[in-house]
Amino acid sequence: MRVRVVLVEPRHEGNVGAVARAMRNFGAGELVLVKPCRLGIEARKRAMHGIDILEAAKTTEDFETAVRDADLVVGTSGVDTAREKRFARISVTPGDLAERLAPMQGAAALVFGREDYGLFDAELAECDLLVTIPASPGYPILNVSHAAAIVLYELYAANAPRRPLRRASGPEKERLHEALAALMDATDYPAHKRGRTSIMFRRLLGRAVPSKWEFHALMGVFQRATKRIEGLEGKRKR
Amino acid sequence: MRVRVVLVEPRHEGNVGAVARAMRNFGAGELVLVKPCRLGIEARKRAMHGIDILEAAKTTEDFETAVRDADLVVGTSGVDTAREKRFARISVTPGDLAERLAPMQGAAALVFGREDYGLFDAELAECDLLVTIPASPGYPILNVSHAAAIVLYELYAANAPRRPLRRASGPEKERLHEALAALMDATDYPAHKRGRTSIMFRRLLGRAVPSKWEFHALMGVFQRATKRIEGLEGKRKR
Repeated sequence: MRVRVVLVEPRHEGNVGAVARAMRNFGAGELVLVKPCRLGIEARKRAMHGIDILEAAKTTEDFETAVRDADLVVGTSGVDTAREKRFARISVTPGDLAERLAPMQGAAALVFGREDYGLFDAELAECDLLVTIPASPGYPILNVSHAAAIVLYELYAANAPRRPLRRASGPEKERLHEALAALMDATDYPAHKRGRTSIMFRRLLGRAVPSKWEFHALMGVFQRATKRIEGLEGKRKR
Repeated sequence: MRVRVVLVEPRHEGNVGAVARAMRNFGAGELVLVKPCRLGIEARKRAMHGIDILEAAKTTEDFETAVRDADLVVGTSGVDTAREKRFARISVTPGDLAERLAPMQGAAALVFGREDYGLFDAELAECDLLVTIPASPGYPILNVSHAAAIVLYELYAANAPRRPLRRASGPEKERLHEALAALMDATDYPAHKRGRTSIMFRRLLGRAVPSKWEFHALMGVFQRATKRIEGLEGKRKR
């Protein structure tokens, strides 16, 4: 889904710039500002490589115009509610939102409210879906650019291809376990500890999920040590 | 796991304040600054309710002191690598990190680098684990307080109790489907469209996962409409 970010009455130009930067980081391009503060040098500085998004931002006089042609309007609310009848504030997490949006087509407007008052009830009522970022009950109010960064990050991460590391295969891992066993042989590792140590090593590799490269590096260390010991003992025996 | 945030040579005091705020939002308390810039009014303003974290921040002259007694040192790197031999920069996602840390005891140091150069290779080499935030290849460098907010959010979300909404039960949902069927009856809904519409409604509810309250509200609308129609037709027939 294409994402439009809508900021309602932002008061600190630095926040607007920081949001533009986060948008560039996470591949969102369209910024709409409802009755924003004046944007000057601080907004431009904070935007960094998001400067073109900041410069192309549209300004509107009201909320309705900002969300009009979006296919889905997503509001953000710092205050969640457990009371179901206050349904206007029932919300999903950013992770849930990303999951729901992933298969959708069209344009979603992500709406962030005022630094102090958030979105008004009338504005929340216009939203198809609300998202609340889980945060400490003692202070759940995030900086608006932090909130935008977190929601945009979740949307980006849901679509980002996970670059697969080449993992060591099962047979490769077995060869590594054999190399450890050979090393224990060579060092006369106490028999009563061998089983325990083998299992410990297997569990450790299981948790670490080694790459092919890590596998080969470890194999190298073990085999080299085993050969060196065998070589030295051979000399001594001669 | 207890989290300590380490900022290495931050240059913009506003960023330090913003990190303190994000820490308060996500329940992290300990901030350590390695050779920071001067912290003045801007840092304090941006910290908001994180001001006590900012004021209690420790300052050190070197990286080693900042991470010394941590049980796990987690570095952050804006640049990931697909080249496995550049193993010093192989990293996990913030979500992976949260999953790995969840069962652990002790203290983790989350280390964020310089605004311009990030962490140096010698510093990365001291880290047990690296995390990279997935971001647009065209501009993957996040503002340091955005990076901190995203990682702290993932750690918090992994432990946050998911407040369960009371979902409508299976039998309740069946009653709702029956109410829709009754409404279709009452309106002489075309027979050849009924199957399709019933399935559409079932799928819609399946995706929306209604709460008990939403279920009762919908039931109310359907039953009321059916009764009104039946009542009016009764009058007409009399």
